[in-house]
Amino acid sequence: MKILIAPNAFKNALPALQAGMAVSRGLKQSNFDHESVVLPIADGGDGTLEILSSAFHANITFTKILGPLEGELEAFYGYSVNDQVGIVEIARTSGLQLLTREDLDPWKANTYGTGQIIKKLILDGCKEIYLTVGGSSSVDGGVGILAALGMKFYSGDQEITNPRPEDLKRIDKIDPEPLQMLTHQVKVILLSDVTNPLLGKDGAVRVFGKQKGVGDSEFEEFEGLMEHWATLVKDHAGKDITELVGGGASGGVPAGLAPFLNVEIREGAKEILKITGFHQELENADLVITTEGQIDGQTAQGKGPGLVAKFAREASIPCIGLCGQIGEDYDPNDSYFKSVMCINSRFDDLLNAMANTEQNLEFMSQQLGNLLAL
Amino acid sequence: MKILIAPNAFKNALPALQAGMAVSRGLKQSNFDHESVVLPIADGGDGTLEILSSAFHANITFTKILGPLEGELEAFYGYSVNDQVGIVEIARTSGLQLLTREDLDPWKANTYGTGQIIKKLILDGCKEIYLTVGGSSSVDGGVGILAALGMKFYSGDQEITNPRPEDLKRIDKIDPEPLQMLTHQVKVILLSDVTNPLLGKDGAVRVFGKQKGVGDSEFEEFEGLMEHWATLVKDHAGKDITELVGGGASGGVPAGLAPFLNVEIREGAKEILKITGFHQELENADLVITTEGQIDGQTAQGKGPGLVAKFAREASIPCIGLCGQIGEDYDPNDSYFKSVMCINSRFDDLLNAMANTEQNLEFMSQQLGNLLAL
Repeated sequence: MKILIAPNAFKNALPALQAGMAVSRGLKQSNFDHESVVLPIADGGDGTLEILSSAFHANITFTKILGPLEGELEAFYGYSVNDQVGIVEIARTSGLQLLTREDLDPWKANTYGTGQIIKKLILDGCKEIYLTVGGSSSVDGGVGILAALGMKFYSGDQEITNPRPEDLKRIDKIDPEPLQMLTHQVKVILLSDVTNPLLGKDGAVRVFGKQKGVGDSEFEEFEGLMEHWATLVKDHAGKDITELVGGGASGGVPAGLAPFLNVEIREGAKEILKITGFHQELENADLVITTEGQIDGQTAQGKGPGLVAKFAREASIPCIGLCGQIGEDYDPNDSYFKSVMCINSRFDDLLNAMANTEQNLEFMSQQLGNLLAL
Repeated sequence: MKILIAPNAFKNALPALQAGMAVSRGLKQSNFDHESVVLPIADGGDGTLEILSSAFHANITFTKILGPLEGELEAFYGYSVNDQVGIVEIARTSGLQLLTREDLDPWKANTYGTGQIIKKLILDGCKEIYLTVGGSSSVDGGVGILAALGMKFYSGDQEITNPRPEDLKRIDKIDPEPLQMLTHQVKVILLSDVTNPLLGKDGAVRVFGKQKGVGDSEFEEFEGLMEHWATLVKDHAGKDITELVGGGASGGVPAGLAPFLNVEIREGAKEILKITGFHQELENADLVITTEGQIDGQTAQGKGPGLVAKFAREASIPCIGLCGQIGEDYDPNDSYFKSVMCINSRFDDLLNAMANTEQNLEFMSQQLGNLLAL
């Protein structure tokens, strides 16, 4: 029996690789005769930087950038000198996770710091950049990234060097030429798991604005900023960014970048499975085990473990999901998983359970192995 | 594949039979081809009354008795008119569970109410009484039961009709004759899971006194009461009750009853498995599933599910344990269980998890069935 262990990270609790190793150790402690291979996965969310960096043999390094609001931060990114491939997780460079709930300020928050890393990668000779778009703290239409890469923004004769969303309404002219000089040899692959457009009821403001701090009474005004930005782009680049499928991810980053950079938007989970060699490993597997912090009704919607289960099902290979929690909306009768199990051995509050993730996962995997041996 | 589901109750959360039905339902919802039979078990602890009453086709009824301290209570017991068999759970008639921690008073708490039920059973024609000894609130050496059954207690010329432990020191004479008139045709089978004697460092006072409210500074004085009681019995019945193996269960009930009644002490878990027909069902099973609120290092020590797993192991039939919590001292490498799994689907405090026991158990059993189908 050959087992493919394709773990996703347990968010804020256990990285994917360590999760896979815990499963592997637990199975080895059982009396189940098997071989296993650990192939960590991600879906553009938590842990994508580590997974892609490993797949590309990229070094993970960090650099000082501007945070999404005031101040600087040290942010990690990956770079493979051999492949000239860079990896940037926007959640770690301009992400919600960098701010407390109280600090959220969508009128000021922006993606300038992410742009600084992209610029650094390009100056280091990088030709292909994987940028995850998900988990950003801003709704800036990608303006921050563009500014960091050299685009000029003007209000009349006055240049605005690092425009914030609140500045957008007074900007009446942009100059993309310096940006294009820098970036014309670079391809940016945006890894996304949403199809939301920039504007409208399914757009960046109305769907994702609230979690970034846009107040109920501010939606209309904020939507107006994005409309103004789309008009500016149309006027200066001749391109309509309001129709772009997925343009509204990460506060409109794909919509803002698409007209000015060589951009491709790809499904994060699918692309990462492809890059990591999941499909080749799947061919050799008799059983797949995947992990995630929570498995719920959303897991099938573009999440890594959901996709693992789906591909396994299509190949008629059973897939078992091990998780910290099973969401109430999980329906076992409408699932690609053969079986889903919760790893917690005892009643614990969330923090304790998270602290015990590795130990619980290993124990559960041993018990699972003993079952599989039957 | 024939599955024997031998569930123990989840204490205070789900009775054994309902637990077994949840497992059975869950398995049926899986795609595992099997037949199952549900045979609820107990070990003298929680739920024994229901299990034995069902095995003996006894009616469960209730009657008003004296509580372990002040006041009356309505207590359940079982009686099979056909078999002339009665079932009494001391935890429900004179138990710790009837008192709050603040109410505990070992100087007054006694087993008189339990004796009242035994008397009622005898007057109704009962010839064999199963009395679980475990979980009592008193350390009265069985004096309460004896008094309720007619034994006379005297301090000089004064009769003490319902002697409490605190009265023992002034008692200098007992008269068992009225008790023996009542009980001479009756056999009392004490179901116990401990071997502690009445006295000494492993005795009723020093091992179980604390949980019943004996203060650290009171141990010696309380031990003196039991020594005095043993001396009284020796003087009046010529029997030494200090050496009786298991005499210290339930505050010395077996030690007190043994010289005056036709008493047998049996291992609760083992006896109940025998009565319920577990062994015949085991012969036909390919797999055993048992349940318990918590599976831990103590489960192998005379607990029902531990014994189920042991007998299954001896018959080379794998046994799976499903539980609400796995104790930290549980060692999978020193266990009769093939696999032990926790049923909780999400992080919950104890009360919520307990409230969801049935639902979680059913879900887990479905997932388990899908695994077994592999």
